[in-house]
Amino acid sequence: MLKVILNGANGRMGRVLQEMIAGDADMVIAAGIDREEFSADFPTFQNMADCDVAADVVIDFSHYTATPAVLDYCVEKQLPVVVATTGLEEDTKKRLLAASEKTAVFFSANMSIGINLLAKAIREITPLLEDDFNVEIIEKHHNQKKDSPSGTALLLADAVNDAVKEKKTYIYGRHGNDLSNPLSELGIHAVRGGTIPGEHTVLYAGPDEIIELNHLALSRNIFANGAVKAAKYVSQKSAGLYDMEQLIDEK
Amino acid sequence: MLKVILNGANGRMGRVLQEMIAGDADMVIAAGIDREEFSADFPTFQNMADCDVAADVVIDFSHYTATPAVLDYCVEKQLPVVVATTGLEEDTKKRLLAASEKTAVFFSANMSIGINLLAKAIREITPLLEDDFNVEIIEKHHNQKKDSPSGTALLLADAVNDAVKEKKTYIYGRHGNDLSNPLSELGIHAVRGGTIPGEHTVLYAGPDEIIELNHLALSRNIFANGAVKAAKYVSQKSAGLYDMEQLIDEK
Amino acid sequence: MLKVILNGANGRMGRVLQEMIAGDADMVIAAGIDREEFSADFPTFQNMADCDVAADVVIDFSHYTATPAVLDYCVEKQLPVVVATTGLEEDTKKRLLAASEKTAVFFSANMSIGINLLAKAIREITPLLEDDFNVEIIEKHHNQKKDSPSGTALLLADAVNDAVKEKKTYIYGRHGNDLSNPLSELGIHAVRGGTIPGEHTVLYAGPDEIIELNHLALSRNIFANGAVKAAKYVSQKSAGLYDMEQLIDEK
Amino acid sequence: MLKVILNGANGRMGRVLQEMIAGDADMVIAAGIDREEFSADFPTFQNMADCDVAADVVIDFSHYTATPAVLDYCVEKQLPVVVATTGLEEDTKKRLLAASEKTAVFFSANMSIGINLLAKAIREITPLLEDDFNVEIIEKHHNQKKDSPSGTALLLADAVNDAVKEKKTYIYGRHGNDLSNPLSELGIHAVRGGTIPGEHTVLYAGPDEIIELNHLALSRNIFANGAVKAAKYVSQKSAGLYDMEQLIDEK
Repeated sequence: MLKVILNGANGRMGRVLQEMIAGDADMVIAAGIDREEFSADFPTFQNMADCDVAADVVIDFSHYTATPAVLDYCVEKQLPVVVATTGLEEDTKKRLLAASEKTAVFFSANMSIGINLLAKAIREITPLLEDDFNVEIIEKHHNQKKDSPSGTALLLADAVNDAVKEKKTYIYGRHGNDLSNPLSELGIHAVRGGTIPGEHTVLYAGPDEIIELNHLALSRNIFANGAVKAAKYVSQKSAGLYDMEQLIDEK
Repeated sequence: MLKVILNGANGRMGRVLQEMIAGDADMVIAAGIDREEFSADFPTFQNMADCDVAADVVIDFSHYTATPAVLDYCVEKQLPVVVATTGLEEDTKKRLLAASEKTAVFFSANMSIGINLLAKAIREITPLLEDDFNVEIIEKHHNQKKDSPSGTALLLADAVNDAVKEKKTYIYGRHGNDLSNPLSELGIHAVRGGTIPGEHTVLYAGPDEIIELNHLALSRNIFANGAVKAAKYVSQKSAGLYDMEQLIDEK
Repeated sequence: MLKVILNGANGRMGRVLQEMIAGDADMVIAAGIDREEFSADFPTFQNMADCDVAADVVIDFSHYTATPAVLDYCVEKQLPVVVATTGLEEDTKKRLLAASEKTAVFFSANMSIGINLLAKAIREITPLLEDDFNVEIIEKHHNQKKDSPSGTALLLADAVNDAVKEKKTYIYGRHGNDLSNPLSELGIHAVRGGTIPGEHTVLYAGPDEIIELNHLALSRNIFANGAVKAAKYVSQKSAGLYDMEQLIDEK
Repeated sequence: MLKVILNGANGRMGRVLQEMIAGDADMVIAAGIDREEFSADFPTFQNMADCDVAADVVIDFSHYTATPAVLDYCVEKQLPVVVATTGLEEDTKKRLLAASEKTAVFFSANMSIGINLLAKAIREITPLLEDDFNVEIIEKHHNQKKDSPSGTALLLADAVNDAVKEKKTYIYGRHGNDLSNPLSELGIHAVRGGTIPGEHTVLYAGPDEIIELNHLALSRNIFANGAVKAAKYVSQKSAGLYDMEQLIDEK
């Protein structure tokens, strides 16, 4: 039974994780930390430093300003840690690396298993299609999303580009009367509307055939799913930096 | 049995029509005209003016420079005509209108039944979605297509805009960090790759639901299909200008 | 400002409606009724008969056993009512009809605007496609769904069948070596997996072109959306039975 | 410049290959064989045994009854061969194996690069999804197709089953009121309509996310594309039996 300390336990994703871990026969929450007081059927703390509960792994789903303290705690307690908090500053990313020399640190640009499997499939099939297929990415998100394209679309585009010999140039739309649409262009199309949690399609169009790899998120809970899998994985590891790509490749 | 004079009979679309009409129990080719000599199991002419064969309707699938002579012929012979030739000059469009005062003339921006039905569905459902759904159009074509977006994408966007009270502005891609994605924007996304004959998707994304209307052309033969249906329709008509929208609405 | 009495106010859908109405500038909850006590910033009652608050319309999102009492209340108070409760017994359906002679009663087999717009699009385009397009329906739902096909798939199939001259036979899968796939067959394919809230696709496949009408539900909240629209609509109506199809056609 | 002997040169696929090779800077047709006399800008023969033209590789796109003679010829002449003919008898498959001890023989259940890449992606990602994703396959073909499901759908289903620990049972539709939809079921749904050349979708549906791998054939020319790639590949090989999976893995 894996004992988890959950940082950000009462935030939106923290509450999703509480429910998910409650339904998982192999895991239990040993303690929950949240800036604001809250009650739960496990010990709670407002300050991570006060948490003296024995545990096997820490999951951090909090705020980018809180992550450095989490890393310090995990190094001190020699606890493996999953950092699922987003928007980390460059300095924090350096601290991830430093911490990973002392304990097992898991961090991934996208915590969803599905997106990372899509990236894996891209790495496998793109080299065979490079010579005669155009590659395009279509991503769809809710209309409140301010940035285009999505970070995940860029992650997938980079996975394409890592797999080809002739690097592609990203373009973000097409409009004109004299376009040549070379294979070296990779169009990324950002569709916005309603409340779509996120859909990403990588399209390979070649001579008389089209391959599409598609991922649809039905909610942001998929990041919690990924964090649970990451916690199980990293709890078995010695010091080092781990990510979803490794988790997938080792499985 | 409807007797058809086929102009452009030996061109790519003309040959498709030959085959299609050969398999149609209600139609027969009375004569075929093509600039260059060719042999067939019906009388052939290189010059339309020389064609003295009795017929019920003319289908013109030729070259925009040839269409004016077709109109003259049809007015003189009092024959209904389907003009399926594309790229007509403005002057020829005026002559269509003039000819339609003397005989039945059928002309449509897009000859496919499917695209015109999509436009009809758009006209029906868009008013109900205007208040809380974003509308976006995604079109996919082969990489040899020079123009973006496709004329058909614009036809569909215009069908959306004709159906709403607050007119939408078309945009052709999104890139940035501070986008607001208002309902008044209609994104048209042109995907290019391989040999895709043409796919058009109209997406309505609202609160927790998404409606998509999608049309996929497997070949350009669909324009020949539309011409056959148009010939049957217009052969029953008196002088006037007709199009696919009317054909659909009357059926 | 439309004053709503919400029956089933503290159930899953009731809480969704509370939030939705709180964000709606044209509506307010005048009172909430729920079997079990709960607190809210509006008057609450455990028994509808005790509710003496003035209102313009009632929304019932409760349990099929509770609906008859709701109808009695609305007839007595001369209040328009939206019955969004599912699984009604035959006897309750008769009472709906009886109540509709005294007050405005809104009831629909599917409360989502999107699905009803899909049905409308089906009614419009199917007659034109009947002669040479096969029609097939694919529906996808979570793996906990016990019935196949979904009621909504049948609603859409019936919309197809109502629109054609030669009625189609529904089949629920294909397996064999000597199938003829006539136009008179309408295949309904039930895909099951994960937590999919619901996706329905009506596919028309004809000579070289394919039309797809697709509806994706991202959550069950769409039924609450529909109930809000229905409440605004029915509050303007005199006695009679109303449904989503009418709401859509009048808009 | 690779010199090809093309068997079945004047059949439907043979003519597609003629055109394809004419446009390929690295290949040329050294000779064409077809049962019926035809003229071409390369030497033609009605009987393969009569063909004494020097070549590097043979492509056989003919009839299953013709393939044994092709194998004999290739063994005798020590020529690598791509067998792209379908519907081979069991006895011919044994002769493939025997011939492969003497020369390089390429044979694949499906000659399209795209489908084989889909199978590769399936092998890569399925093991990671086995524990909590349902897998379903949807295939769409024209209404003249007599068998359901398609051989390619079964090839993809087998690729799924080869990748999982708990083997899945294939089912071909769902209809009922008390279904449990366990992970051990793999639904294969055969949609039939119009002239669809072939579409295959492998859907993985799990907790709040869906992955789809999709392949759309726009024409049967994709099998000719695959044969050209196979000819280049096998022409470099010594005796042995090769297939698309190997070609892809070595590239």
